[in-house]
Amino acid sequence: MAETGKAVVLLSGGLDSATTLAIAVEKGFNCYAMSFDYGQRHRFELAAAKKIADRVGAIKHLVLPIGIGDIGGSALTADIAVPKERSDTDMAASIPVTYVPARNTVFLSCALAWAETLGAEDIYIGVNAVDYSGYPDCRPEFIKAFEHMANLATKASVEGDAKIRIQAPLLYFTKAEIIKKGISLNVDYSITHSCYDPSPEGLACGQCDSCRLRKKGFAEAGLVDPTSYIEE
Amino acid sequence: MAETGKAVVLLSGGLDSATTLAIAVEKGFNCYAMSFDYGQRHRFELAAAKKIADRVGAIKHLVLPIGIGDIGGSALTADIAVPKERSDTDMAASIPVTYVPARNTVFLSCALAWAETLGAEDIYIGVNAVDYSGYPDCRPEFIKAFEHMANLATKASVEGDAKIRIQAPLLYFTKAEIIKKGISLNVDYSITHSCYDPSPEGLACGQCDSCRLRKKGFAEAGLVDPTSYIEE
Repeated sequence: MAETGKAVVLLSGGLDSATTLAIAVEKGFNCYAMSFDYGQRHRFELAAAKKIADRVGAIKHLVLPIGIGDIGGSALTADIAVPKERSDTDMAASIPVTYVPARNTVFLSCALAWAETLGAEDIYIGVNAVDYSGYPDCRPEFIKAFEHMANLATKASVEGDAKIRIQAPLLYFTKAEIIKKGISLNVDYSITHSCYDPSPEGLACGQCDSCRLRKKGFAEAGLVDPTSYIEE
Repeated sequence: MAETGKAVVLLSGGLDSATTLAIAVEKGFNCYAMSFDYGQRHRFELAAAKKIADRVGAIKHLVLPIGIGDIGGSALTADIAVPKERSDTDMAASIPVTYVPARNTVFLSCALAWAETLGAEDIYIGVNAVDYSGYPDCRPEFIKAFEHMANLATKASVEGDAKIRIQAPLLYFTKAEIIKKGISLNVDYSITHSCYDPSPEGLACGQCDSCRLRKKGFAEAGLVDPTSYIEE
């Protein structure tokens, strides 16, 4: 039987979160998509998130303003260059400057706040521990620890038996598997945005970690990458 | 030997967080005070936080804008009346409508982001499990679970041996003990703001849970309450 409850789905506007939303919708959840305006330089992703939320069928899409860009510390928000053409070895070996300090912790916390208000017990996040950029807050042990904490943080944990579940359906998928899953659910990847450093017109750079993982994923899935890259 | 490291201190502008900041300063930390502009109706606390940060000696005071007011669900942000003159039994028995969903989780997450950027290992929060309003995210087990999660969330947890400590020095203090401690550290409580529902001029209502706990604390400590209440 399909789920009929509510779920909050973190939606960045990228490939992974679009697929995650499609998975949650397929499960039968009434999905409340949540994006963040945190001063990211790749702001095209917010426009992408809105399109995806409409197209994939979220009940509501909330863009929460949050000033974590003021904190600095990342190439995605501060004036630090986005690294290009890193080798696979480099990507596996170190956490890049595109890492935003504690970002998934902050985003999941806000999702928890909304879930509590909505009475939703499920929070979906498109993190991935296989083809990823080496961020600490994409690891399974982090997700598990967050879930444990969340179940002590809420009103329901005191007054009732409601349970928060952090759902990370892509955790053990390769990028190619994510794309195949999304295609099977009719996700239109041409409206998703992955690039960390797009052109002023919103074209993907093709060279940052995020573009490279995306290209590799489509290649390995044997599918055409619908992304508009600068260099083409 | 006094601490010489950095600490992020959550500073609401109320009595508890002012005392917490004074404790962290006394320990020798270089304190980075953090407040949130989240659409709270008792915005006088932000002005109070600024004064306290200056007076108690924070290195920096950051007010982070965050749209959790958009999420609703609380009398502190939404159009729900703040309850007045609740009995002690009522306060002990149920979580009031002034509870902001997952607020401490969200605030601690943002503090974690700043701590990571600053290279701080200590995060101070003035939560209290004795004279409190029954909020789930003020309980010791919540704080412990957050700390565990935080130590899996950060770059340092992957690359080094840095350890995040969530410091909650007031956890087992009564309100009277908090006030006595603060007075011993020369905290000027006349500049702190606790009221959930102040008058347009910033006078405390004297009747909400927060005012009642504050009054009771000063009475039990045998000290004069310097707060300006509406009814006086």
